[in-house]
Amino acid sequence: MHIVPFTVTATELPEVLVLEPKVYGDARGFFFESFNARDFEAATGVKRSFVQDNHSRSVKGVLRGLHYQIQKPQGKLVRVVEGEVFDVAVDLRANSPKFGSWTGVLLSAENHRQLWIPEGFAHGFLVLSESAEFLYKTTEFWHPEHERTLVWNDPDVAIAWPEHGEPQLAAKDKAGALLKDADRFEAEDS
Amino acid sequence: MHIVPFTVTATELPEVLVLEPKVYGDARGFFFESFNARDFEAATGVKRSFVQDNHSRSVKGVLRGLHYQIQKPQGKLVRVVEGEVFDVAVDLRANSPKFGSWTGVLLSAENHRQLWIPEGFAHGFLVLSESAEFLYKTTEFWHPEHERTLVWNDPDVAIAWPEHGEPQLAAKDKAGALLKDADRFEAEDS
Ligand SMILES: Cc1cn([C@H]2C[C@H](O)[C@@H](COP(=O)(O)OP(=O)(O)O[C@H]3O[C@@H](C)[C@H](O)[C@@H](O)[C@H]3O)O2)c(=O)[nH]c1=O
Ligand SMILES: Cc1cn([C@H]2C[C@H](O)[C@@H](COP(=O)(O)OP(=O)(O)O[C@H]3O[C@@H](C)[C@H](O)[C@@H](O)[C@H]3O)O2)c(=O)[nH]c1=O
Repeated sequence: MHIVPFTVTATELPEVLVLEPKVYGDARGFFFESFNARDFEAATGVKRSFVQDNHSRSVKGVLRGLHYQIQKPQGKLVRVVEGEVFDVAVDLRANSPKFGSWTGVLLSAENHRQLWIPEGFAHGFLVLSESAEFLYKTTEFWHPEHERTLVWNDPDVAIAWPEHGEPQLAAKDKAGALLKDADRFEAEDS
Repeated sequence: MHIVPFTVTATELPEVLVLEPKVYGDARGFFFESFNARDFEAATGVKRSFVQDNHSRSVKGVLRGLHYQIQKPQGKLVRVVEGEVFDVAVDLRANSPKFGSWTGVLLSAENHRQLWIPEGFAHGFLVLSESAEFLYKTTEFWHPEHERTLVWNDPDVAIAWPEHGEPQLAAKDKAGALLKDADRFEAEDS
């Protein structure tokens, strides 16, 4: 039996998974497989092909999100290669028992953790370190016309963001929708 | 017409390509697509699917390579997310007019450059900064039994590595083969 070189742990949202890779250290530094199509499918049961990789850098206090793509939903496999962020997913599937619930995980360059966020969830993160470099793979291309923002601080979602000052947001994210007004994923979308 | 958000430039080895993405900066930091399956194929003419992503960290003076996988050759799309390296590809295709020739490119977190190294080439890099984090996507899985090392300093290849002291090598890389003894890619391999 082939043993995959990472662990998989479910979060409070059972479809949102934390992956923790095995890192091989030696005198030169380290090496790890940050993605392996065969192992990812074997260990998570998730059958997808990833079509896009994105890379962003943000300064401390920046909050990006909570974003989602309606109609052309994106599954996302996210990780941090510099710094630390609090990474959040919110279930927006209309017929889910967890609709409106969130989960949050600390992702850092040190813990090498990855979060798998399937289609049907909004996603965002707050930068906790001086700066952070954030990488993610997506199962669907970017379709700006289908992009939506759920506002980060809706009391009905009540995300327990770590201690922070006023976050730095893009204009579109300040103007994000409340859960009650947000477009939801209907069964046929995802 | 869709304009891809990166430039593509051939090197001295015409199949080895430098990609330079467009980076979108704003008050929060930056964003760029580090890989887009549709754009990559449209801009390079290279039709491949990538199955594995790797991530290594190395300290200054480390030289990894020159590696290749015989029989199950890997095409590689490589980049740096921290630090700077001198990245090298050597043509090992027996029937190539460029057999034994090399090309080298500076890849850094600052220039965001990527190198596409098709199947049929050996690949390696020397770390020029205090440390470097190196990411690469491959078109084939890792098959340790098919791994080979071409030695980094064969005078018949004569790679003009940047000024450096004695490089730090893994044992298997110290014991790499000379070009004249190295397994080559025959037409049926790639
Ligand atoms: C998302 C995206 C943006 N862009 C461009 C548009 C802008 O010029 C620039 C920045 O875009 P923004 O949407 O402001 O970046 P952003 O980092 O705020 O957006 C991201 O936030 C994450 C929380 C989500 O998981 C992602 O899916 C994405 O929405 O990059 C692309 O070219 N391709 C893409 O895939
Ligand atoms: C290449 C590889 C290594 N490993 C493991 C084996 C070792 O325990 C550890 C380090 O392996 P090494 O071969 O010493 O790493 P390395 O960084 O020296 O090897 C790499 O060098 C680049 C120049 C090449 O382009 C790559 O294709 C690869 O050969 O990681 C994997 O698990 N998967 C892989 O795909």
